[in-house]
Amino acid sequence: MPAPPGSTPPPAAVVALPGGRDYAVHFDPLAELARHLREAGLRGPRALVVTDETVGPLYLDAVRAALGGAGWDVEALAVPAGEASKSVGQWSGVLDWALRLGVDRQTPVLALGGGVVGDLAGFAAATLLRGLPLVHLPTTVIAQVDSAIGGKTGVNHATGKNLVGAFYQPRFVLADPATLQTLPDRELRSGLAEVVKHALIADAALVERLERDWDQLLDRDEAVLGRVVRDAAAVKVGVVAADEFETGDRALLNFGHTFGHAVEREAGYGALTHGEAVALGMRAAVHLSASLASGRVAGVLPAPFDRADALVARLAPPALDAAVSDDALTDAMQTDKKRTSRGLRFVVLDDVGRARLAEDVPADAIAAAWRYARGE
Amino acid sequence: MPAPPGSTPPPAAVVALPGGRDYAVHFDPLAELARHLREAGLRGPRALVVTDETVGPLYLDAVRAALGGAGWDVEALAVPAGEASKSVGQWSGVLDWALRLGVDRQTPVLALGGGVVGDLAGFAAATLLRGLPLVHLPTTVIAQVDSAIGGKTGVNHATGKNLVGAFYQPRFVLADPATLQTLPDRELRSGLAEVVKHALIADAALVERLERDWDQLLDRDEAVLGRVVRDAAAVKVGVVAADEFETGDRALLNFGHTFGHAVEREAGYGALTHGEAVALGMRAAVHLSASLASGRVAGVLPAPFDRADALVARLAPPALDAAVSDDALTDAMQTDKKRTSRGLRFVVLDDVGRARLAEDVPADAIAAAWRYARGE
Ligand SMILES: NC(=O)c1ccc[n+]([C@@H]2O[C@H](COP(=O)([O-])OP(=O)(O)OC[C@H]3O[C@@H](n4cnc5c(N)ncnc54)[C@H](O)[C@@H]3O)[C@@H](O)[C@H]2O)c1
Ligand SMILES: NC(=O)c1ccc[n+]([C@@H]2O[C@H](COP(=O)([O-])OP(=O)(O)OC[C@H]3O[C@@H](n4cnc5c(N)ncnc54)[C@H](O)[C@@H]3O)[C@@H](O)[C@H]2O)c1
Ligand SMILES: [Zn+2]
Ligand SMILES: [Zn+2]
Repeated sequence: MPAPPGSTPPPAAVVALPGGRDYAVHFDPLAELARHLREAGLRGPRALVVTDETVGPLYLDAVRAALGGAGWDVEALAVPAGEASKSVGQWSGVLDWALRLGVDRQTPVLALGGGVVGDLAGFAAATLLRGLPLVHLPTTVIAQVDSAIGGKTGVNHATGKNLVGAFYQPRFVLADPATLQTLPDRELRSGLAEVVKHALIADAALVERLERDWDQLLDRDEAVLGRVVRDAAAVKVGVVAADEFETGDRALLNFGHTFGHAVEREAGYGALTHGEAVALGMRAAVHLSASLASGRVAGVLPAPFDRADALVARLAPPALDAAVSDDALTDAMQTDKKRTSRGLRFVVLDDVGRARLAEDVPADAIAAAWRYARGE
Repeated sequence: MPAPPGSTPPPAAVVALPGGRDYAVHFDPLAELARHLREAGLRGPRALVVTDETVGPLYLDAVRAALGGAGWDVEALAVPAGEASKSVGQWSGVLDWALRLGVDRQTPVLALGGGVVGDLAGFAAATLLRGLPLVHLPTTVIAQVDSAIGGKTGVNHATGKNLVGAFYQPRFVLADPATLQTLPDRELRSGLAEVVKHALIADAALVERLERDWDQLLDRDEAVLGRVVRDAAAVKVGVVAADEFETGDRALLNFGHTFGHAVEREAGYGALTHGEAVALGMRAAVHLSASLASGRVAGVLPAPFDRADALVARLAPPALDAAVSDDALTDAMQTDKKRTSRGLRFVVLDDVGRARLAEDVPADAIAAAWRYARGE
């Protein structure tokens, strides 16, 4: 969100990491890219941009304009839009392209697009000459609040999602809130599911703002959307700094995801957006939170879970196909890679804005959560 | 080297790294593998072993025997022996194999073999589920003193060597000195080139021991070879701990390599072993060191460079083909990825056991070094 004239923009959030690897998450127009590269110590002349065939036509000119004047020599590659581009084949194509152009250890790789481009280009940057400087230029809500922050990169494999990849942190993230204006409605809503998730697990004030400003958010009011996205990103920044390699608290970001991944799997990938599956998953997770707090739950949820549930309901997830049985969903959860050797692990809420891990959850509480998420 | 009965073995060298990633380099029989896995906190039941078709038949039974009794369930894959296995195709094959078998984040990947297997399996471990625990079981001198230590993993690309990869540190290294007994002579000698390099750049006492015990070393006297390899490994351990990502002193390990890579390239890959090329490169680098210290050098080298040169001469590198011109060699150096933007950077000796980086080296000193390395 461009700062109003005369005011100073809020300071960028910084992901604090050991070994001199701190990096900033800037919310700033793409036009500021050359300055941020310079301030991060990155030097040209060559920069590689990886984008997709939807985002490229919309924003590549802005990136070229921002860099051309500053003496950068920009090379760009667009992969097909969509999850199918997160493949070993596309990764290898990005590498061939970069290595044939010629890169050295100082050549930055700029990932311009949503989570697909960020994960793919991030993994390419991680593995070119054992690591080129990576810069994320996220253009979806999911990417701005989640995937561009935290260093998870990778591609899918025939045997499952995100099974091939690396932890690799960017030098900085530059999220231009204006790019969210061209996002299709369904993608915006999918991203808001992750925003709601971040608020529910760690930011009670953001929950309040979401309740108050929901309609302006759906209308893409620039000031409201910009502030909400920035605050949701700050939750991720804090969690990643505390637990870079997901050995502890970072798992709280999986709120709604153990259920959600099962829904994605059983509904068939592509039938629901990730955000829709997560919204359904959060309904189940909120119900489970209530069960663990107060035993058997019948009818409406007790406070504060009713409030969390009402916020999730605003995401209006589509109904889950009746053909998908609770047993199939529960089975699908068993194959999730977030399992520990002791069994399934769930993220549950203690309160609005506060989450924790729960293990050894009773099977009937899980079944009741599924029934609730279905609206039964 | 097994400790003589009644004595305690020397403590393992430890690579000290930030973020709780310290790891030990053990010189111990493969029979001790299960104990070291347990002490490193790794648990089964499944372990994946990657090896090559030469090393597998020699040592896989020992690994299976060491693990089977301790309740591990061992799966093994052997790639063809040789540099050609360091490819994106073989890497992808290792991933397919591992993911079809089924792995979780606790499944260790054991790299049993020389530098080729270590680099390939290391990169696979780095990229499976964003990183599985990696254990190096090096079986060549090069691997025991160099490639298994320091976290460089990767494969080759059509456009050059080692261009695709990641920095990824193992949980520990277990080097069994007895495995060096089956190494072909030419591979042993190639490995000794790296041993000489480590001694010359950082360990004057090791230089002295090499001068004294050279014949026993070539005879593979277990005690002498074991101690020399352990000391040469300790040099690498120290350098890596000081500079994990090769932004500073780690570059000293390239002594002889800027010249050596040019020799490898111009002689045609495979014509010389890496160690032979490095030995020729060290002759040139020692001459360059003398030139920079005392101006024009004619005839025999002045002290202490004569002593460094005599040690390198024991490696008896083959003569460089007269058809390869000095100009071609100098050109080949320009394409080396260790260049900085200011030009070529050379590692030179100040003394036996002490090295530094030199930039802006005069062209005639480089030409004189090439002539010396050719024996002209
Ligand atoms: N690395 C992580 O930590 C992490 C976290 C969450 C999700 N992810 C991954 O992110 C991916 C989902 O991210 P996503 O939803 O951004 O997917 P995406 O990149 O596929 O983007 C969604 C769609 O919107 C289009 N698009 C992007 N920006 C646009 C814009 N500004 N205007 C118009 N259209 C635009 C894209 O072309 C695409 O068709 C998944 O692969 C998921 O696994 C990764
Ligand atoms: N990662 C690093 O930091 C690093 C450092 C130096 C070299 N390297 C890489 O290491 C590779 C060279 O290493 P290498 O010389 O060990 O090559 P290698 O792995 O190809 O081994 C050499 C040959 O010896 C055989 N062999 C291995 N152990 C044996 C044993 N105990 N008995 C009998 N035969 C055995 C192998 O099958 C192979 O044919 C190169 O690819 C180089 O790029 C990496
Ligand atoms: Zn998600
Ligand atoms: Zn070498």
